[in-house]
Amino acid sequence: MKLDFKILCLRKKYPFTISGHTTTVYPVVFVQISHEGQVGFGEACPGYYFDETVEKIVTFLDLLDLQQFKNPDQIEAILEYVDSKDAGCTAAKASIDMALHDLQGKLKQKPCYSFFSVNPDGMPLTSYTLGMDTPDMIRKKLSEASGFKIIKVKLGGADDKGIIKTVREETALPITVDANQGWKSKEEALEMIHWLNEQNVLFIEQPMPKENWKEHGWLKARSPLPIIADEAVLRLRDIERINDSYDGFNIKMVKCTGMREGYLMIQRAKELGLKTMIGCMGESSNSILAAASIAPLCDWVDLDSPWLIADNPFEDPDLKEGKIILSDRPGLGLITRNRSYHAS
Amino acid sequence: MKLDFKILCLRKKYPFTISGHTTTVYPVVFVQISHEGQVGFGEACPGYYFDETVEKIVTFLDLLDLQQFKNPDQIEAILEYVDSKDAGCTAAKASIDMALHDLQGKLKQKPCYSFFSVNPDGMPLTSYTLGMDTPDMIRKKLSEASGFKIIKVKLGGADDKGIIKTVREETALPITVDANQGWKSKEEALEMIHWLNEQNVLFIEQPMPKENWKEHGWLKARSPLPIIADEAVLRLRDIERINDSYDGFNIKMVKCTGMREGYLMIQRAKELGLKTMIGCMGESSNSILAAASIAPLCDWVDLDSPWLIADNPFEDPDLKEGKIILSDRPGLGLITRNRSYHAS
Repeated sequence: MKLDFKILCLRKKYPFTISGHTTTVYPVVFVQISHEGQVGFGEACPGYYFDETVEKIVTFLDLLDLQQFKNPDQIEAILEYVDSKDAGCTAAKASIDMALHDLQGKLKQKPCYSFFSVNPDGMPLTSYTLGMDTPDMIRKKLSEASGFKIIKVKLGGADDKGIIKTVREETALPITVDANQGWKSKEEALEMIHWLNEQNVLFIEQPMPKENWKEHGWLKARSPLPIIADEAVLRLRDIERINDSYDGFNIKMVKCTGMREGYLMIQRAKELGLKTMIGCMGESSNSILAAASIAPLCDWVDLDSPWLIADNPFEDPDLKEGKIILSDRPGLGLITRNRSYHAS
Repeated sequence: MKLDFKILCLRKKYPFTISGHTTTVYPVVFVQISHEGQVGFGEACPGYYFDETVEKIVTFLDLLDLQQFKNPDQIEAILEYVDSKDAGCTAAKASIDMALHDLQGKLKQKPCYSFFSVNPDGMPLTSYTLGMDTPDMIRKKLSEASGFKIIKVKLGGADDKGIIKTVREETALPITVDANQGWKSKEEALEMIHWLNEQNVLFIEQPMPKENWKEHGWLKARSPLPIIADEAVLRLRDIERINDSYDGFNIKMVKCTGMREGYLMIQRAKELGLKTMIGCMGESSNSILAAASIAPLCDWVDLDSPWLIADNPFEDPDLKEGKIILSDRPGLGLITRNRSYHAS
């Protein structure tokens, strides 16, 4: 097996602001693993988790020796080897996981979801994410998001109620809220959640800083809405720390090292009676179709990034009645666009 | 004027180790500024200076609005605008400086060095840099460096004398030494410098941590060899801090924001009676030909990175009798190689 990688700049259709950060263009590392004439595609989107930069990703990928493995059927052994090479680099590890699953699917002529006994008909609705925006921009973005049936709203800023009111003037669709650690105290969070509960909101993601386990437990005990961990739960081993602090957690490829560990996290959540959502950062269809392959096993889905970027190197996933449709194409089912590797 | 950028992975021919860090492959941002059918090339090579990452570079470049300027003749105004947009991002700023000079040269059909009244015949010898290596690797690298007439050796590790002895078994060429802040005390540094002074060494770069201005002053007062600042002197404004701490400083495009400020630094050094060298990180011919355009104004030159990388997207500069030859081609005189934007 041969590993190659390259870096592309992806651009948001509109500047995207969450609590404390605005993004317009950002570099993403794309991985290809080749074997017997087939190529598996993977994607490492550097997040702010663990300060995983492009430099660290390419250095990590370059250290890997996949030629020691005969074929992608040894996927568990390969991923254990990859995981052992660095304490972090979870996005880079996820790119290998995806590429191997895609490759395996192409070699066996099976879609990736079949490896996880997933019934694609069970796909939940996918939410469409609004960053922190002006009312005009919120209206504009909502008018372009008619294919989606749930709206995710980023809060944790100066005018949370104003943002929700603007959304509610435009649509009665269910809303999910992500505070990105932006609320300062448990009392402030609880008061806001009571207000949001009157606005047809489904759940609240990461209300306060990730270190505040106890405060989140206090909030969960009182909240009328489920409290979902994002920044606080990265990988399988973090689930045990939840105890009574959250009702569930958000699984992302860039945090959990890929489909295999994501699947194990879903299994563990079911054992513990925890809710699961599966989300994304700013990835292309590559990561999104990887996450979508296990998404029918989750309670909620937030995999909208392909529709937020202007230059997806792959075709957007199929979207029908607010749900991503998993194709029966082999592997992840990606279709590459004819695109020069260029940005700006 | 229109600004585009893309990211390529460059690979060292051999793993390259300096005090505390080994590099094999690394991302570099390449910039193009277009105007009236001509294209100027610039390069931002992320260094460890200011933690300037690829993410920061593309975010910075994407913020720039060059369309407000009519043409590259307004280079001073453009560069002042660029400099004002961020306190750091010096490599990104250098990429704009280079691209503008290259573009200006192509539009006026003049080589860039002519903008700085440089006589290309005055080019000093360029050193060839050895990382920290095993004796076998040092011998192998030296055998491939027959075109160079000065050897630069990276010290500051566990076996500095062993490295110099290995080099001296192979060649009697003059040596320059770069400790990359690796020596722990002024006494250790002075003892080593006295030993090095017997080995046909020309000067010592950054013996101790950059914060140690006083210790470097103590060392300079006693050293038989010139003491040159690298990490301690980044831009024009830092020169005044030198006082009696160093005999001179190393100018690098990624530190000083490009050819224009590099030129001003050389002028200021001449006023103060300081020595200048001009050096590089891991850049392609793009940055190297930019630095080389003002290199004849310096005392020493260390612009060997094109010969240390395996996949320069441009032709290597001409090297003759250990000197980079400045061509009379317009602009920087770059010749692009037919290269796919791909790595590993």
